[in-house]
Amino acid sequence: MIDDIVKFISGYIPLSPHEIEFIDQQNLIVRSKKNTVLLAEGLQAKECFFVLKGCVRSYHIVDGVERTTAFFTEDQPITPVSYVTGQPSGYFLACVEDAVIALGSHERNRKLIEKIPALASMIMQMNSELLVQQQESFDAYRNLSPEARYLQLMDERPDLLSRVPQYHLASYLGITPESLSRIRRRLMTGTRDPR
Amino acid sequence: MIDDIVKFISGYIPLSPHEIEFIDQQNLIVRSKKNTVLLAEGLQAKECFFVLKGCVRSYHIVDGVERTTAFFTEDQPITPVSYVTGQPSGYFLACVEDAVIALGSHERNRKLIEKIPALASMIMQMNSELLVQQQESFDAYRNLSPEARYLQLMDERPDLLSRVPQYHLASYLGITPESLSRIRRRLMTGTRDPR
Repeated sequence: MIDDIVKFISGYIPLSPHEIEFIDQQNLIVRSKKNTVLLAEGLQAKECFFVLKGCVRSYHIVDGVERTTAFFTEDQPITPVSYVTGQPSGYFLACVEDAVIALGSHERNRKLIEKIPALASMIMQMNSELLVQQQESFDAYRNLSPEARYLQLMDERPDLLSRVPQYHLASYLGITPESLSRIRRRLMTGTRDPR
Repeated sequence: MIDDIVKFISGYIPLSPHEIEFIDQQNLIVRSKKNTVLLAEGLQAKECFFVLKGCVRSYHIVDGVERTTAFFTEDQPITPVSYVTGQPSGYFLACVEDAVIALGSHERNRKLIEKIPALASMIMQMNSELLVQQQESFDAYRNLSPEARYLQLMDERPDLLSRVPQYHLASYLGITPESLSRIRRRLMTGTRDPR
């Protein structure tokens, strides 16, 4: 899987054979089974993550009910709020599928950037892209109907629909599983949103 | 106002007298009157912004109605989605108050980072903080009732309540101005949210 990291980084910055070897030596990669909790609410995140394979879900527990807030899949970084603030995490991160994940830490990232300074510019660019994606998701959530949000998800991340259980998807869209079923049925039969 | 920029940057990285002079020479600062549109929907953003004084609002127009998505005030950076993607902007940015704003552009930022490399680490840290703030706002929007969102806003950004017209605040909270009035009345008389 180290090839995947190298390939991903090479999409942003050129890497020398020495730098590739250095990355390889860091033992960045872990394999996590489905349902593994990577970060629990209330704990301080010491690590940030990069998904090489699989799907990770973030969720809050509100009044005893799980509320899914994001899905992270191949080539997506996960920077927990708690990792940046040093405060206890307000949410959980758990694997929806068996996953292969690269782990970062403040110390490890500092060392990597010291050795490969161009990584800093890669991180800057990735963070800009992330900011933009997050802003777009938030805007969609505010401005679109649940049906329109579902259609957008089908368009942008069609793989999620088959990878993630329906009730997680419904929670992510901010609706009940029953509403999601109705939306899907409506779309399949070609009838329109009655609202 | 250049002192404000220098003070802000110095909170992240040390600046030499030479570097301060260089920043001063860039003519980064513009003054914009209330209601000035900094970025219009459909146009490509060539600039990013940093609010030194005043308040900037971002909004979409959905079915002819303005939907406010964010307020940016003193010491907050604004990175339009369009600035990062190069695509036409999906939303407007306009001054809610007379404002003093520092302008960045890809070319200008490149030049500044070339001259003051430590700025890159500042931007990285700011972007991490931004990502976290954005994630927290989104999570609050999903998980809290309108009343709880209003209370959180009162707690975290009390200045907004007096700076911004009620109907913009209501739109930002995702409720009607009437609902916002009801919430405020309930909170003032000490009665509880009936839901």
